[in-house]
Amino acid sequence: MFGKVLIANRGEIALRVHRACQEMGIRTVAVHSTADATAMHVRLADESVCIGPPNARESYLNTAAILSAATITGADAVHPGYGFLSENARFAEMVEAHGLKFIGPSPDHIRMMGDKIAAKDAMRRLDVPLVPGSPGALESLEEARAVADQIKYPVLIKAAAGGGGRGMKVARSADELEDAWRVARAEAKAAFGDDSVYMEKYLDRPRHIELQVLADTHGNVVHFGERDCSLQRRHQKLVEEAGSPVLTAADREAMGARVTGALAKLGYRNAGTLEFLWQDGQFAFIEMNTRLQVEHPVTEMVCGIDLVKEQIRIAAGEPLGYGQGDIRFAGHAIECRITAEDPETFAPSPGRVNTYHAPGGLGVRVDSALYSGYTVPPHYDSLVAKLVVHAPTRPEAIGRMRRALSEMVVAGIRTTLPLHQAVMDDPEFQSGEYTIHWLERFVAERQG
Amino acid sequence: MFGKVLIANRGEIALRVHRACQEMGIRTVAVHSTADATAMHVRLADESVCIGPPNARESYLNTAAILSAATITGADAVHPGYGFLSENARFAEMVEAHGLKFIGPSPDHIRMMGDKIAAKDAMRRLDVPLVPGSPGALESLEEARAVADQIKYPVLIKAAAGGGGRGMKVARSADELEDAWRVARAEAKAAFGDDSVYMEKYLDRPRHIELQVLADTHGNVVHFGERDCSLQRRHQKLVEEAGSPVLTAADREAMGARVTGALAKLGYRNAGTLEFLWQDGQFAFIEMNTRLQVEHPVTEMVCGIDLVKEQIRIAAGEPLGYGQGDIRFAGHAIECRITAEDPETFAPSPGRVNTYHAPGGLGVRVDSALYSGYTVPPHYDSLVAKLVVHAPTRPEAIGRMRRALSEMVVAGIRTTLPLHQAVMDDPEFQSGEYTIHWLERFVAERQG
Repeated sequence: MFGKVLIANRGEIALRVHRACQEMGIRTVAVHSTADATAMHVRLADESVCIGPPNARESYLNTAAILSAATITGADAVHPGYGFLSENARFAEMVEAHGLKFIGPSPDHIRMMGDKIAAKDAMRRLDVPLVPGSPGALESLEEARAVADQIKYPVLIKAAAGGGGRGMKVARSADELEDAWRVARAEAKAAFGDDSVYMEKYLDRPRHIELQVLADTHGNVVHFGERDCSLQRRHQKLVEEAGSPVLTAADREAMGARVTGALAKLGYRNAGTLEFLWQDGQFAFIEMNTRLQVEHPVTEMVCGIDLVKEQIRIAAGEPLGYGQGDIRFAGHAIECRITAEDPETFAPSPGRVNTYHAPGGLGVRVDSALYSGYTVPPHYDSLVAKLVVHAPTRPEAIGRMRRALSEMVVAGIRTTLPLHQAVMDDPEFQSGEYTIHWLERFVAERQG
Repeated sequence: MFGKVLIANRGEIALRVHRACQEMGIRTVAVHSTADATAMHVRLADESVCIGPPNARESYLNTAAILSAATITGADAVHPGYGFLSENARFAEMVEAHGLKFIGPSPDHIRMMGDKIAAKDAMRRLDVPLVPGSPGALESLEEARAVADQIKYPVLIKAAAGGGGRGMKVARSADELEDAWRVARAEAKAAFGDDSVYMEKYLDRPRHIELQVLADTHGNVVHFGERDCSLQRRHQKLVEEAGSPVLTAADREAMGARVTGALAKLGYRNAGTLEFLWQDGQFAFIEMNTRLQVEHPVTEMVCGIDLVKEQIRIAAGEPLGYGQGDIRFAGHAIECRITAEDPETFAPSPGRVNTYHAPGGLGVRVDSALYSGYTVPPHYDSLVAKLVVHAPTRPEAIGRMRRALSEMVVAGIRTTLPLHQAVMDDPEFQSGEYTIHWLERFVAERQG
């Protein structure tokens, strides 16, 4: 097992990884920008190294500084968390070239899944169902027209190098196609430096359902069921559930078997998540995330597993030690992402947190790097806390989340706590009958 | 179901009950002394009533004031928590006489188990194993000598009305008997106004193991396995585990069946705990607690059940809705009782908590009424937080507790956090090989 792990991240996820390491008896190295010198992940780590100024390009994305920190401190391995360098194949290669373990998949698999077209090609070959669409990048507007006529409107034009909703446009009819084509390509060029786009059937009322997978280096692949992440605003998830209110155990088992079979054939290793759109009982693969996800805690709660410890064990070469049949799903879990934003306008609200008080009691988990007196810096993602609850049933989990939200105090800055309370109080959310469009409408009605 | 519950308690347990009610959609009434006007249980309750001055006899033990508060606020039921009036049969009767439900057993069962001799008589008749001893109160020193000769030294002389270790003396040989007899009777008289004493075989290296039971009003009785509460100082529990490091699933099943059978015959209802000494594979009943216990969370963590919600449902007349076979035991849980005391001298340390920061993350539960700026009053029990962890195995749970303890901040007062950290770090504790005497020695060695 590793003696020391460098955590190449900040905020709650750096703390999450630190906690797993500490419980395993592994020493931790925090890296931080000058803006994060008093951050919780720095205060709790065994050692810390300043790697640059507040601008993430010069600190948390500064591979040279991070690798130097790993070398200087004698770390054996690097955990990238999510975001920043977590899906950067080159970084993973550099980590391994320095004789350290990268706690994640192979650079080749990161690269394959980072290219959204290559990822779909791979999944198509592996019998994972896809959304109907263009076989690859579209060469011309004419080709786009031909594919759209074949798969039927509405269609979606998406950047091949995309993510976060940028370079993504809907065309509801042939009239709208040329505009969508032009805008998507321009956005893709601006955001990713690459104007390649492809086309997919636009599903009008899908849910976002994803499967969590772990694979060791001994050929064992298991899944931990699904997460329903349909509550999104501008393609950012706000609330996640495990399991999905619409999936049966048989659905989970069938899709789980399909996915683990595919990743076994691929020779994939470590943690991964396959994201699907789901509508009318059909799954359609959209992308694979080759890293730990923000919403991994809901899976941990229903499966009673520590995914980060598993990632570390796998990277150290240990076999999983259990099979699919040993994994049980108990109860229901919900996560609310609390961000430092105005709950109506979503304007960022960094600043000093005068008082922070976490809710407690049975079935409540808080993953947060907040503390009383901490100043949320303006330079990074606005996520400041993940509030997670677990209970025997979904209605009981909702009751627990409402209770926990009502106890939580983050004074001094604005947060999305009131929005989450409103979502939990809403009868439509409580019914479980929502699609990926539900939250946008809900937010618009509150603003209206 | 009840519309409104009055919680006749304070501190973390009042908050615990409030949380269960709030999650069930039941409104809560807090009662409080003038010393507790800004306490967390008061701040979070839907309504609150001041019932008297700081002295508990005039407030939390003031049945007239509490019943008036219940009547004025229109409560349907009263939850007594633990301590205070929770085992006062007269109070339970008065609650029912006012047309309210008492969330607990019948007054007759409270009375029976409150009398330690009557409790043993009942358990003897019901085939629950006892410590060898006098059949009832000892009439004379001569009778004491005769019983001691029969059961063999060492023996224990205990107050019939006792509790908390008062009126309890060991005689290791015939020479020590007369002194033990005299001192135990004098202490019993002073503490309880009743000098009745009885005798038991003194077990020299027992563990304290207790079984958690629930019984509904429809004849269903189930158990939720054991808690090992052997880590005690002056008969006060400091650390509790579920399950016990020494019990097998077969032991648990056998003793559970014996206990549920006995309580079914007794017609017992609501929550109860049977406490045993355990040595060399033998259980010996010592007493039954007819209420929720401080350490109930460890059972909730391994069984995935909310015992307080179950208590409320049972009091409202609902059937359990599941049988013994539906109750599963998953993983291992540990609770540390954090008190406002000097960790070496155990001198009380009330005062202002300048900063309170609860640990978070996977498998960590905090039951506490602390908040930053709260002043721990000097008038009540020194328990200020229960830190509970859950993990797949005992070693992993210990690792998680060490990690959680290291994150917890209670600044401004002294607490037993360092003692708990030392216990968790200790190889003997980690081995699971401890008796009820272990902690006293551990503390003495630390004091040097």
